[in-house]
Amino acid sequence: MSEFALIDAIHARCRTQRHDVVTGIGDDAAVLACPEGRRLVACTDTLVDGVHFPRGTAAEDIGWKSLAVNLSDLAAMGADPAWALLALTLPAADMEFVERFTGGFAELARQHGVDLVGGDLTQGPLSITVTALGFVTSGAALTRAGARAGDAVFVTGTLGDAAAGLHWLRNHAVSTGARGTTITADAPAALLQRLRRPTPRLVAGRALGGIASACIDLSDGLLADLGHVADASGVGIEVDAAALPASPALRVHCNDEERLSCQASGGDDYELAFTVPPDRIDAVVSKLIDVGCAATRIGRVAGNSGVRLCDAAGGTIEPPSRGWEHFR
Amino acid sequence: MSEFALIDAIHARCRTQRHDVVTGIGDDAAVLACPEGRRLVACTDTLVDGVHFPRGTAAEDIGWKSLAVNLSDLAAMGADPAWALLALTLPAADMEFVERFTGGFAELARQHGVDLVGGDLTQGPLSITVTALGFVTSGAALTRAGARAGDAVFVTGTLGDAAAGLHWLRNHAVSTGARGTTITADAPAALLQRLRRPTPRLVAGRALGGIASACIDLSDGLLADLGHVADASGVGIEVDAAALPASPALRVHCNDEERLSCQASGGDDYELAFTVPPDRIDAVVSKLIDVGCAATRIGRVAGNSGVRLCDAAGGTIEPPSRGWEHFR
Repeated sequence: MSEFALIDAIHARCRTQRHDVVTGIGDDAAVLACPEGRRLVACTDTLVDGVHFPRGTAAEDIGWKSLAVNLSDLAAMGADPAWALLALTLPAADMEFVERFTGGFAELARQHGVDLVGGDLTQGPLSITVTALGFVTSGAALTRAGARAGDAVFVTGTLGDAAAGLHWLRNHAVSTGARGTTITADAPAALLQRLRRPTPRLVAGRALGGIASACIDLSDGLLADLGHVADASGVGIEVDAAALPASPALRVHCNDEERLSCQASGGDDYELAFTVPPDRIDAVVSKLIDVGCAATRIGRVAGNSGVRLCDAAGGTIEPPSRGWEHFR
Repeated sequence: MSEFALIDAIHARCRTQRHDVVTGIGDDAAVLACPEGRRLVACTDTLVDGVHFPRGTAAEDIGWKSLAVNLSDLAAMGADPAWALLALTLPAADMEFVERFTGGFAELARQHGVDLVGGDLTQGPLSITVTALGFVTSGAALTRAGARAGDAVFVTGTLGDAAAGLHWLRNHAVSTGARGTTITADAPAALLQRLRRPTPRLVAGRALGGIASACIDLSDGLLADLGHVADASGVGIEVDAAALPASPALRVHCNDEERLSCQASGGDDYELAFTVPPDRIDAVVSKLIDVGCAATRIGRVAGNSGVRLCDAAGGTIEPPSRGWEHFR
């Protein structure tokens, strides 16, 4: 099997839809028409087999997730996604894997009007690097650096499902090799769905643009990611443990200690955490209701540095672990 | 060692120089100001340890090459480079490797005014994916699809040095592991330099924009890459074996058969091959002389499909091998 047959298979599932793609897949580089007066937003994220997804994850889910984690970064900037580039490294020229991978990738791309415009296909240990490109109104980009003392801290959706799903998989699933995983007990489907098919919060990010004071997407774990906001903004952040939103599935499958661990320190949520000045809280709540995205107030910007997890009395809780570090 | 210390080390060696970087390294995504009225050009290429560079290649050279192969793609479109994103996957948190890698990357970036604006650092088998972004005047982008019957075929620089260098390394060098290679015979320094530090032909690509009818950069080997031009343009291409340019080092280190093999089918040249309508040949030659880039006329667009290597009498030469295929 030639690499060119695999590229053709990817191309067939990712036909260009957008009018701003002058030259797409198949040349040395893509040629793209940028909208005037807007800023380009660019990010890149890698998923490595066995590190960022469990060995044996379905190819469709890997395809979905490789794009989702990048669109989540665009969401955290308040950007509209436009285009993606896909660098796919495969151990062998596996047409079935490529077709299924591209199916999952294309499904999410279509939902958000994203065109795959180029990439690279190489041989090596399974790894996927996607670059996502989008646009934001000049001056409306959300950064990590704008949080100020007195701001409220919010998070979209619920926390901890993906981490709980991963924990469950490690304890209950038997990998059957490259192609799938055999589940040996009743699977918590809702938790696994959050792990395998995260939802990039693009609609919420757009709604927050120009209103939130700082924003980050939650990939490494709430406390670790809020730590990045605290560092970049030069502030401290207090998080109320009891306020952290949990899904019904998380409440069913975890005891209180496990739940808090997944919510505060588990990775892979791909929700947005953001800060809002007091006088804009009503505007933010109303905007998020308009776009149908749930959000929960979980704390406040207070103190000089670091992130503190608080109990109901305001005392400090030692968090179960400090989030995802890529090198252990 | 935390990933954040490594990111800081990269950032320290890649300070933002450009005024069009609104938000660079350190947020969820970069925010960038695009010039009005120009097209964005985007490409991504992966280098895998032991596949795209020999195990034991110096970290500085890997850093240089990971950017160079991407800038070469921009050159083939006639684009001006602007920004790069770096997705670096490392087996361990190796500060020395990161510092040396970034040194080589930054050296080439500075030469071409490219800013590193973001990226990702992950743990896994050594692999590097760079995304390069640049700009081209609307309508002046060089593609693979514009070659027409009667056009002349040119190539910049000389061919085959990198392939000959790689061949020599495989026969003469003893890898000493991750950090270097011990050379056991007189090294053909000029050939190895071409392999390790390819020169992206950005100046030539810019000069050819709007003048050449088609262009491609030579990564897989001359005949294979001209095959992509022939396919995309719906034409055939004839290449005169005797016309292929060779460096003095290639002539010294290879016999005639080895030399032709490296020139016609060896990969990693990162020269530009391009086609020119007859009435523009003088303009192209004069433009390339102006910018100080040597180019050689090596053939013509003729026939319906495919690439034919010709001897002095016009007969067909069977090429030694058909270029680099990524899956074997």
